[in-house]
Amino acid sequence: MAALEPAGPRAGLAEVRAAERRLRGRVHRTPLLTCAGLERMAGRRLLFKCELLQRTGSFKIRGALNAVRSLVEESERTGGELPRAVVTHSSGNHGQALACAAQAEGIPAYIVVPRTAPQCKQAAIRAYGATLVPCEPSDESRAETAARVVQETGGVMVHPNQEPAVIAGQGTIGLEVLEQAPEVNAVVVPVGGGGMVAGIAVAIKALRPDVKVFAAEPSNVDDCYQSKVRGELTPNLHPRDTIADAVKTSIGPNTWPIIRDLVDDVLTVSEEEIKRATQLVWERMKLLIEPTAGVGLAAVLSEKFQAVPQDVENVCIVLCGGNVDLRSLTWLTDLSGKAE
Amino acid sequence: MAALEPAGPRAGLAEVRAAERRLRGRVHRTPLLTCAGLERMAGRRLLFKCELLQRTGSFKIRGALNAVRSLVEESERTGGELPRAVVTHSSGNHGQALACAAQAEGIPAYIVVPRTAPQCKQAAIRAYGATLVPCEPSDESRAETAARVVQETGGVMVHPNQEPAVIAGQGTIGLEVLEQAPEVNAVVVPVGGGGMVAGIAVAIKALRPDVKVFAAEPSNVDDCYQSKVRGELTPNLHPRDTIADAVKTSIGPNTWPIIRDLVDDVLTVSEEEIKRATQLVWERMKLLIEPTAGVGLAAVLSEKFQAVPQDVENVCIVLCGGNVDLRSLTWLTDLSGKAE
Repeated sequence: MAALEPAGPRAGLAEVRAAERRLRGRVHRTPLLTCAGLERMAGRRLLFKCELLQRTGSFKIRGALNAVRSLVEESERTGGELPRAVVTHSSGNHGQALACAAQAEGIPAYIVVPRTAPQCKQAAIRAYGATLVPCEPSDESRAETAARVVQETGGVMVHPNQEPAVIAGQGTIGLEVLEQAPEVNAVVVPVGGGGMVAGIAVAIKALRPDVKVFAAEPSNVDDCYQSKVRGELTPNLHPRDTIADAVKTSIGPNTWPIIRDLVDDVLTVSEEEIKRATQLVWERMKLLIEPTAGVGLAAVLSEKFQAVPQDVENVCIVLCGGNVDLRSLTWLTDLSGKAE
Repeated sequence: MAALEPAGPRAGLAEVRAAERRLRGRVHRTPLLTCAGLERMAGRRLLFKCELLQRTGSFKIRGALNAVRSLVEESERTGGELPRAVVTHSSGNHGQALACAAQAEGIPAYIVVPRTAPQCKQAAIRAYGATLVPCEPSDESRAETAARVVQETGGVMVHPNQEPAVIAGQGTIGLEVLEQAPEVNAVVVPVGGGGMVAGIAVAIKALRPDVKVFAAEPSNVDDCYQSKVRGELTPNLHPRDTIADAVKTSIGPNTWPIIRDLVDDVLTVSEEEIKRATQLVWERMKLLIEPTAGVGLAAVLSEKFQAVPQDVENVCIVLCGGNVDLRSLTWLTDLSGKAE
């Protein structure tokens, strides 16, 4: 794994509040939906925070736009110029989100994308006016290429999950959930790099320390779980494959201390559990989530979750995104009849 | 076509208001969502009324529950017994909705279903505790079988779209849209039997006659369009096939006079336009609508809609349902690349 430098001060409630102000009117306040059938299966009240209905199809616009708006405000405050460019490496939702945020502010965006990334994702990034920079499909090549682009363009790197402004932006989900459902007892959040669960934990534990924050993670890429068990940051050096492709990445130096201190527990789920939960959301809720967004429901429906006390009655599950290539869903046929 | 007797007085605003009261707390107030990308394509502001997120996965629960609750209130008022049963013929959303409504009120439901109906739809009806009564796949057999079941059970027939209490129930969509978006200039509603568009037209034209009400219909089953052109009810005697299977049925004696008097225009769309619109909603909005729910957007994106004056700026499209068999979507692959 390429070394990551902590990129700034740890995000706190003040930073999340500032992000909320910056994002107001610029992102959707996504609905919190319910589903009686899934509640019966879970044996608890479920509140689904629908970030798949967010602009760009995932929560990532919150963090990306907060980072870009912070740069713009900084230049306004100091009377300096706008950033020459913003740069990141991501073939997925953060790449689209940063491209969209930069386009809204009239700043060029350079997105480093592995040559092997699906054409449809590359097209989505291009549709927001960003420049694609191809790299080899390895962490080293991604980091090196991004560093080179930063140097050549004089741009600012916006890391997908370790940048504090990104973490603070994702934390606005936590503020909204507390406003929309003050009765909430727990929030379940898929974890990859950990920006979303860290931001949400910062907001929720500052305001409502009684509300549990659970991270949900595929067993195949369980670095967050391993880190919590060992008490030290333990990245996946050789991550296995997972259908929840958006959380294949490991937590990092900025999200780990927050997760260590504020996340109550990490729940791991199998590939079969993720597929089943994803299909349940499609069929019962009519929401076209990507499999990564099924990880939270999978955790709540797992046997392990039975051990969570029954007074944890109102459980919010973050449906983080919906950017799925419909033509790639060949695994659907494998599940015939299982979701009755 | 089997003859239909007008089942009661024409539904008016008072009946829709009464339905609103009966349904309060029993059905979802579905969200009105926007999508910047689709607005750019349409050249107008679009407001999507998300009835696919309604209980039972379609708007049909509004009409079915209003009909059942009306029967219950009537028996309470007169001190009589609850209805012995409710009966309908429908292999689709109304069958599920009536089964769900009857279960909630503790009344037996008998749903007449063609032997050829997909197993998954039959299973959904059974899951609500209803009794399935098989019939042959013809209008005659459906009507005859339903009449026999009514006689044998002493139950009450609740017609899917000609029953006035059903029409009034669907009309509550119109009340909600006016409350959620007072700026609305037009509402576009898919039309099959016409219960939804008639109910919505009754509510909207009574309160806001300046708001246009458009029916949207597949060209392959354009009986509503033909009826408006000729000025007389003109059912499809030999309807062609359409991917929008939930609107294959024709308007009838109770919905026709309302449509004749209150619906501004009928917009017809091709099968290709319906498929494209459906896929756009999946990809851009992450909402898993059934193809029938794509008919409204298809109409708004059609060339014909360009003729609607530009001051019709805020257009509400009713996404009527999401009960689609995911495994049947083989046509997706035919569309590769067209939705870029």
